[in-house]
Amino acid sequence: MDADSRQARWEERVEGPLAVASLAFLAGYAVHVLAQGLAGGWRDFCLLVMLAAWVLFAADYAVRWRLSGQRLRFVRSHWLDGVVVLLPLLRPLRIVKLYETVQRRHGRPRLSLHARVITYAGVSTGLLGFAGALAVYQQERGAPGASMKTFGDALWWTCETLTTVGYGDVTPVTRGGRLIAVGMMACGMALLGAVTGSFSSWLIQVFSQEGDAQDGERPSGR
Amino acid sequence: MDADSRQARWEERVEGPLAVASLAFLAGYAVHVLAQGLAGGWRDFCLLVMLAAWVLFAADYAVRWRLSGQRLRFVRSHWLDGVVVLLPLLRPLRIVKLYETVQRRHGRPRLSLHARVITYAGVSTGLLGFAGALAVYQQERGAPGASMKTFGDALWWTCETLTTVGYGDVTPVTRGGRLIAVGMMACGMALLGAVTGSFSSWLIQVFSQEGDAQDGERPSGR
Amino acid sequence: MDADSRQARWEERVEGPLAVASLAFLAGYAVHVLAQGLAGGWRDFCLLVMLAAWVLFAADYAVRWRLSGQRLRFVRSHWLDGVVVLLPLLRPLRIVKLYETVQRRHGRPRLSLHARVITYAGVSTGLLGFAGALAVYQQERGAPGASMKTFGDALWWTCETLTTVGYGDVTPVTRGGRLIAVGMMACGMALLGAVTGSFSSWLIQVFSQEGDAQDGERPSGR
Amino acid sequence: MDADSRQARWEERVEGPLAVASLAFLAGYAVHVLAQGLAGGWRDFCLLVMLAAWVLFAADYAVRWRLSGQRLRFVRSHWLDGVVVLLPLLRPLRIVKLYETVQRRHGRPRLSLHARVITYAGVSTGLLGFAGALAVYQQERGAPGASMKTFGDALWWTCETLTTVGYGDVTPVTRGGRLIAVGMMACGMALLGAVTGSFSSWLIQVFSQEGDAQDGERPSGR
Repeated sequence: MDADSRQARWEERVEGPLAVASLAFLAGYAVHVLAQGLAGGWRDFCLLVMLAAWVLFAADYAVRWRLSGQRLRFVRSHWLDGVVVLLPLLRPLRIVKLYETVQRRHGRPRLSLHARVITYAGVSTGLLGFAGALAVYQQERGAPGASMKTFGDALWWTCETLTTVGYGDVTPVTRGGRLIAVGMMACGMALLGAVTGSFSSWLIQVFSQEGDAQDGERPSGR
Repeated sequence: MDADSRQARWEERVEGPLAVASLAFLAGYAVHVLAQGLAGGWRDFCLLVMLAAWVLFAADYAVRWRLSGQRLRFVRSHWLDGVVVLLPLLRPLRIVKLYETVQRRHGRPRLSLHARVITYAGVSTGLLGFAGALAVYQQERGAPGASMKTFGDALWWTCETLTTVGYGDVTPVTRGGRLIAVGMMACGMALLGAVTGSFSSWLIQVFSQEGDAQDGERPSGR
Repeated sequence: MDADSRQARWEERVEGPLAVASLAFLAGYAVHVLAQGLAGGWRDFCLLVMLAAWVLFAADYAVRWRLSGQRLRFVRSHWLDGVVVLLPLLRPLRIVKLYETVQRRHGRPRLSLHARVITYAGVSTGLLGFAGALAVYQQERGAPGASMKTFGDALWWTCETLTTVGYGDVTPVTRGGRLIAVGMMACGMALLGAVTGSFSSWLIQVFSQEGDAQDGERPSGR
Repeated sequence: MDADSRQARWEERVEGPLAVASLAFLAGYAVHVLAQGLAGGWRDFCLLVMLAAWVLFAADYAVRWRLSGQRLRFVRSHWLDGVVVLLPLLRPLRIVKLYETVQRRHGRPRLSLHARVITYAGVSTGLLGFAGALAVYQQERGAPGASMKTFGDALWWTCETLTTVGYGDVTPVTRGGRLIAVGMMACGMALLGAVTGSFSSWLIQVFSQEGDAQDGERPSGR
């Protein structure tokens, strides 16, 4: 109980700074990848920002492990947190959670479940797609025979992949790029599942309401 | 209450003319894009029709804002209407809503929920696909290295994209075309979600009916 | 009531012969398209079989229209039957319905709802895919620049399309082929919806059973 | 009853060894396909391992047929087991079932239904994708005009196919490869159905919980 409350207090306190650090990491990575013509000093500064953010993530993980009072079980039950420490580009996804906390703290009325799922899926996909496009572009840039020549191509390829359309006019050819691409395909599938699932559950809900009250046919808020 | 009723009266009165204006806008745009060999006078006339329709949309938005008695909250709660004013090609989608209103006014029996969802998804996709094909074709036509050479190609590419098949034999290569294409991919995903979701909820409904009455096994109307 | 019962008797009596005629039509079309090296007499015989089958379909439609005692309403409420008369290649799909009737008449225990949906979706997709592959192949064969060179290519393209994978190594290039292809993409979407929907409703059902009885965790028949 | 209990005892006893044999078969096949430069003796050893495993599968099928006391009905009601004997590469899929049995025997708390479905779908897809990539690669390797040149290409193609993205930069060109590919596309569709279906049923469950208790809004375990 005590460990839980101390952990909760810790999480509440560091959530804001860590979210800022996440965005700083993403921004630093973006500048590092895209701004090729930048002076060396600025590129070093970006690397420094990324390193600093990563140190913060690792420290947060260590503190929470300590506070939990658990040993290996912590690693297993918080494997997602471990993955995020190893792949800090996924970290900005937690902003979704922060947003919800802030909304609740300010007492704002929460969106309906389906609106929330669509919003979260959209924001997550946007952040993940941007990070993925950066990572794949870094791998592909300058590779022999690459069809992904500009960052615009990378973004276009990302949209193709996340919606599972897959024209194939732009495709990764390097081993690293393909590895990241497989992860993004899996995200595309999950996104499709989220969209389809919300639609399906929304319809079922509307239908059961129509069954209950024959005159209240129009779903509220549409 | 008063503002609401005045707003409802306004909407009822202008719905018909605005639907006609929407279709006129789409038709004007289609002629403008496709009829390249037309005399200059006719093309100017098309532009004029589009401009007039757009002025009507903007006026409708302004009047409804005024009637609502709200300030910035109106912009936020009616953001979809704002988007439609900025992208008038999306406007014909509201015909779906008009159709339902007309059906109800004439006292026609409404279709079942699943038939309605499929119908609306189909009509929306048709209108949106046509508008999108026109817009992408306008961007791509004459671009260096474009694989979309005729409007037939554009329509074929639209079908590929909306069903998320994506052969890749025809793909947009310009920045503008790709931007519109991303929007159409998102629509394809939503369409897939609507089809899958209706199927899923229809099955669940049939199943629960089979559970209730063992002899009433065949779903009605199929 | 009387019209209904006479109609039901008629349908019961002609169902079998019409199913045979449907398969004969499909077989005749297949031979006509694929057996290019056949002697002219055999090819004429195939055309004759197709014509005879089509006459049967049209006669059935006419008789049922007559028996219904309705005028234009029949065309509207039986529009699917009208489409099948115009596109007799879709006719074999009704075999699915015949199969169910036969099963019931023999008193065989019916499959579970989900097994039935999957079976019907599978058989329908198989028949439709075969008919579509034939039709597209007939359009594409010999077209300048066609990538679909053998019937094997056509079948491979059909599988790609129906599963919405869409590699794009084989694609239709003629107007007719693309028109049929759009219909098949729509079928692929419906198939995806059927598979996803059954899975979803099966899971929901299993879940509600798990909630009811904590120890009966394994779904029966798996 | 007696036949059932003897069958259950048999299955319990051979499950472990058969799972090991399944993995040995897969490993032997992988070495046989991938290690082209291996000395002839080792390759013969791989074939021997595969043959031995297959004999075990066939013997298990025969014994269970005998124990069932049934004749042809066994073949019909256990058609999946028959398929697995003919296509032993599909056999490792049964490991999923073994895993569950082991978990239950050790009294471990079982995962929630949705976590289980996702886990099973993931493991099944992984095993199936690996086996399929091997089988297709064996067909395509060295075929004239093949775009699948390394096993890495085969794995990349597998991921494209199972997620229904289908870029088309790598595609099978041989008859055998395409036949296996069609099976993998069907698996991709089923995987999509599983992911979407779990998401959908999870949302519906969360929604009904939200309806029941307004304050317990957050789904547990997220």
